[in-house]
Amino acid sequence: MLGRTYEGQNCSAARALELIGERWSLLIVRDAVFGGTTRFADFQRSLGIARNILAARLDRFVDEGIMERRLYSERPAHHEYVLTERGRDLQSIILALTRWGDRWAAPAGPPVLFEHVDCGGRLEQQLVCTVCGDTTTPEQVVSRPGPGATAPAAA
Amino acid sequence: MLGRTYEGQNCSAARALELIGERWSLLIVRDAVFGGTTRFADFQRSLGIARNILAARLDRFVDEGIMERRLYSERPAHHEYVLTERGRDLQSIILALTRWGDRWAAPAGPPVLFEHVDCGGRLEQQLVCTVCGDTTTPEQVVSRPGPGATAPAAA
Repeated sequence: MLGRTYEGQNCSAARALELIGERWSLLIVRDAVFGGTTRFADFQRSLGIARNILAARLDRFVDEGIMERRLYSERPAHHEYVLTERGRDLQSIILALTRWGDRWAAPAGPPVLFEHVDCGGRLEQQLVCTVCGDTTTPEQVVSRPGPGATAPAAA
Repeated sequence: MLGRTYEGQNCSAARALELIGERWSLLIVRDAVFGGTTRFADFQRSLGIARNILAARLDRFVDEGIMERRLYSERPAHHEYVLTERGRDLQSIILALTRWGDRWAAPAGPPVLFEHVDCGGRLEQQLVCTVCGDTTTPEQVVSRPGPGATAPAAA
């Protein structure tokens, strides 16, 4: 598993990638978060992904607490895969990826728009300072060691 | 190349992943964006990544316009890798990954804090409606086809 090579990385971005960083994984999450997809056959149809790869990714999500496996049909037994809170919280990663792709890799314009359900307005991810309330630019971000900086790196 | 399997995906998140979705790639970008790293040896030291993999990733970034290769020493000839605007704009993806990892995969607390250079305040990514100005919750996001929805999927 690629993830093993991350052992020395005490970094939350690295840990997040370790859990959900394989590319198909994030597209499965995209379908779950924005398409409400829960069933194996629906993921398979949407992604055109090999069944064995899809099954492995969904199992991994269940193991990592990102999805829950629920029985939705008893005869025959069929399960669906429902995002947990931890899984739903991946939405902002998908939105950040989409914003970048819209800007730099969508010559025909955004394939999908994300809108505010209340008013239909376009949504924008902003970086806001929780102290002074300013909306900051990328140049105004500095990093420094946090409370977990001296913890052993995640295995 | 994994990316070939994305051909049917007309989706900006998929295209962004295609360009920068391999996990080491995003950690290289992290070091470049937040550490100001530009030199091969410095990336190598920070990441502990195999030289051939690092070289391939940096070459790919140059090909994709995410980094520029610049000569910084003539004898011997040494190059550094400097983020372009397209590359610097990946910051928000790293921040979104970090936020998720801090919340769900950092039991000892965040290894790194991102702060506002002006006041030292903690920064938070918010989803703001560009029409009504509301800060929205994840449940308030809906997706619909955009102008690029009927374009052929990116090859």
